[in-house]
Amino acid sequence: MLTVMTQPVLIRIHPADNVAIVANDGGLAEGVVLPDGLVLRERVPQGHKVALADIAAGDSVRRYNVSIGTALADIAAGSWVHERRLSLPIARGLQGLPMPLAGAVRQAPPPLEGHHFEGLRNADGSVGTRNIFAITTTVQCVAGVVEIAVQRIREQLLPRYPNVDDVVGLEHSYGCGVAIDAPDAIIPIRTLRHIARNPNFGGEVMVISLGCEKLQPERLLPPGSIPVASATAGASVQSEPLDVLCLQDSAHVGFMSMIDAIVARAVPHLERLNARRRETVPASELVVGVQCGGSDAFSGVTANPAVGFCTDLLVRAGATVMFSETTEVRDAIDQLTARAASPEVAQAMVREMAWYDAYLQRGQVDRSANTTPGNKAGGLSNIVEKAMGSIVKSGSLPIDGVLAPGERLTQRGLIYAATPASDFICGTLQLAAGMNVHIFTTGRGTPYGLAECPVIKVATRTELARRWHDLMDLNAGLIADGEASIEDMGWALFQLVLEVASGRRKTWAERWRLHNDLVLFNPAPVT
Amino acid sequence: MLTVMTQPVLIRIHPADNVAIVANDGGLAEGVVLPDGLVLRERVPQGHKVALADIAAGDSVRRYNVSIGTALADIAAGSWVHERRLSLPIARGLQGLPMPLAGAVRQAPPPLEGHHFEGLRNADGSVGTRNIFAITTTVQCVAGVVEIAVQRIREQLLPRYPNVDDVVGLEHSYGCGVAIDAPDAIIPIRTLRHIARNPNFGGEVMVISLGCEKLQPERLLPPGSIPVASATAGASVQSEPLDVLCLQDSAHVGFMSMIDAIVARAVPHLERLNARRRETVPASELVVGVQCGGSDAFSGVTANPAVGFCTDLLVRAGATVMFSETTEVRDAIDQLTARAASPEVAQAMVREMAWYDAYLQRGQVDRSANTTPGNKAGGLSNIVEKAMGSIVKSGSLPIDGVLAPGERLTQRGLIYAATPASDFICGTLQLAAGMNVHIFTTGRGTPYGLAECPVIKVATRTELARRWHDLMDLNAGLIADGEASIEDMGWALFQLVLEVASGRRKTWAERWRLHNDLVLFNPAPVT
Repeated sequence: MLTVMTQPVLIRIHPADNVAIVANDGGLAEGVVLPDGLVLRERVPQGHKVALADIAAGDSVRRYNVSIGTALADIAAGSWVHERRLSLPIARGLQGLPMPLAGAVRQAPPPLEGHHFEGLRNADGSVGTRNIFAITTTVQCVAGVVEIAVQRIREQLLPRYPNVDDVVGLEHSYGCGVAIDAPDAIIPIRTLRHIARNPNFGGEVMVISLGCEKLQPERLLPPGSIPVASATAGASVQSEPLDVLCLQDSAHVGFMSMIDAIVARAVPHLERLNARRRETVPASELVVGVQCGGSDAFSGVTANPAVGFCTDLLVRAGATVMFSETTEVRDAIDQLTARAASPEVAQAMVREMAWYDAYLQRGQVDRSANTTPGNKAGGLSNIVEKAMGSIVKSGSLPIDGVLAPGERLTQRGLIYAATPASDFICGTLQLAAGMNVHIFTTGRGTPYGLAECPVIKVATRTELARRWHDLMDLNAGLIADGEASIEDMGWALFQLVLEVASGRRKTWAERWRLHNDLVLFNPAPVT
Repeated sequence: MLTVMTQPVLIRIHPADNVAIVANDGGLAEGVVLPDGLVLRERVPQGHKVALADIAAGDSVRRYNVSIGTALADIAAGSWVHERRLSLPIARGLQGLPMPLAGAVRQAPPPLEGHHFEGLRNADGSVGTRNIFAITTTVQCVAGVVEIAVQRIREQLLPRYPNVDDVVGLEHSYGCGVAIDAPDAIIPIRTLRHIARNPNFGGEVMVISLGCEKLQPERLLPPGSIPVASATAGASVQSEPLDVLCLQDSAHVGFMSMIDAIVARAVPHLERLNARRRETVPASELVVGVQCGGSDAFSGVTANPAVGFCTDLLVRAGATVMFSETTEVRDAIDQLTARAASPEVAQAMVREMAWYDAYLQRGQVDRSANTTPGNKAGGLSNIVEKAMGSIVKSGSLPIDGVLAPGERLTQRGLIYAATPASDFICGTLQLAAGMNVHIFTTGRGTPYGLAECPVIKVATRTELARRWHDLMDLNAGLIADGEASIEDMGWALFQLVLEVASGRRKTWAERWRLHNDLVLFNPAPVT
């Protein structure tokens, strides 16, 4: 039971900030006297900003020791600094950014040793945290058939294979009616290709194709895209040729013959998956995607800093952590390039940001399209303030690599995986990269979940964690309540990741079977 | 039982054509003597073209009395005219098109009277063919929760409401993480708005919102977007305010309280839907969307001409028929403007085509991105040939109106509903327009179906209709077999539409519950 906060509680991130946010549930009323004697000139909702000093028109409003905008008119100390009182700064240009020196040797972070989890080793060297039979699809046309087959496999076959956690149809909107030779079509195609190889699927790839679609099976998974394991490797050996079942094949007479064929074809995959056993593997085999969604002003104060601390622990343990959400890190580009492990990494970040700037411009918008009504209601005035709270998830260590949308990881460490900030698109792209555990922070609250990978949801506020007690896996609101430190929560999250990865603990999304759709990033036209 | 065709059968569409297609199953072998004495110089697969005369390099290859390309080298009579032997013509410009004269009075087509179906009359005047409880969603974030609630409603509530055909969650990938103020964002937003009002949902609109999403319920369905029925109207009166359930609402403590609340909120909607009864209504209340997918060379010879004949019957009966698939009608723009009922309709067609040309160009592709491997395997060389076979679905009558993507119908008659050709996107947009029966032709075969509307699938070939005997609702292949005329099949389809609309017959997609996803057309960026 938490202590009810009767005293006004303000959170200032940096000593140079001229605003602080109200932590109290329900906000603070006009006339309330703050700890330093300042009197509130008006009601300020929870998560919203209070001016700590007079801010003249044109002066910067500073939070995270960064200008999140300039005052449109004078703002007296004790006033509510809401979004309509400040202007959005112009986006930082992509020239003249701080860059690491070529050849400079960075000090490696202190290694963190002795942490393990029980994982499912794959023939290609990756490690799964779940043992899922995934059915790859080339095109939306087959989705209805695959869904019926998946239900049948789940009901009739899965009980005979107790080591298999689930069966999942990888259905999506792509595959036909799309400009498949457009330059940007590579993004959705490689996303689907790489999702088929997610470590949680044990290397078992079975493809359901219609037959006449543009995304032919051999285009989706060209020869060599599924590695053949050596004879000495683990139990999950994927042998060529590709296991494809084509609905238009003349062998299928009548609908039920399609379903029967899919179910029959599933059996050897299920048998191989069922024969696998978890083994103790080092924490370095974790591939964690971090993301935030439904953010509020507490995201950057409680949950995201805790994630950032956990990110540092994971990277020090040799694991891989991806942070993403291009429009939410764009305004921190100078901090990120300064943290790049090499000039090449910094340049790759600039390349991805420039690509995204141009993509948005083609649609006649810019990064300011990011913030949501919920963000604003939660106290986030604009994308700059949101970005400063978002990049905290990336921790403090050097950034080791950059991944373009839909690419698959080829290295470990801290990776900037460039994706849109859309929760489901980001999650889908992180799955393609090879994610085996997902960490998701939320302030407003979302029931987000994926069928393909466990999602650990972290609440930014105690009120949310209490209300959604069976949807939130961790309450980082304890930080704002003064009941836990960022370090405490970071360690708790690190331990929770190991528990979840080991299969000893199911996330709430898994228990309720809350699954969002795979949503592809397709910047190319449909036809 | 059909007669096995042992004689070579060729189909030439127009006397001026210099190619004809092979109708025989399995194609025709080299050396086969054709009815007019011509000897095949090589094997020609079923659906593929034979040169009926020598075609010199640079000469036009004509089908449908239209040049579908020019020969890249000399093609001798009796040769296989495959896609690699002809060049794609340059797209017809959008200037100088044949236009109807302003004020010219068109002769109305002979009315077709006395045809009725048993429909479900809605308060707004529209008529449903199914009595479906649809749950509208603002954002993908709620999809997992809604899916669980839908299952619960289907299992626990539906048995008590025998007049309600089904419950459907209108889940989609939109709603947040999108540039919602981009100029093109109006397309996905109005699509979702209008789908909520599809006639098959009886005017019952219930919205599940997360709370913090960009697409707020009042933005999705602004006041006035759901008409309030007058007191004298039918049983299905939608009363203001909007019935919205917001998951982030503080009333919901714990996951099950969300599910319980959705299920409880469904009851009054189900009660009102259950009280409705079918009544005899004129065929003019039909709103039919026609579409083809997985096309082959028979599409333009059998199924699509039969659909075109049926289209004429429906329009003569006062009904509404939408044809769509912009990239598949683009090359017939001169035929379409010539058929426009007024200069305004012709100009609107040109406006939609020009918009799409620019949209494709932005993605560095053009209309040639349309054809699929299956089209080509089925004998369609390029988009021109495909387009000529596609527009046949629109019949022969004047075109009364044009609908931009996602718009809702406001008039009857023959309508060009501009949509991408992607099966699922076209179907989704036709649902938004107000479709209550869907006609879908296929040559290669697709198990396409929608949860929101019955889909009548018409096979172009007898072989497909036999093989997929429980997926195809009508076999237009009888036309190629010489066993039925286009008129026969058109009338059979017209009667089938009335049977299906009346609920007396379920389509195969309905019987198997084959449902494709709603796939939105979103030309605007994601963030």
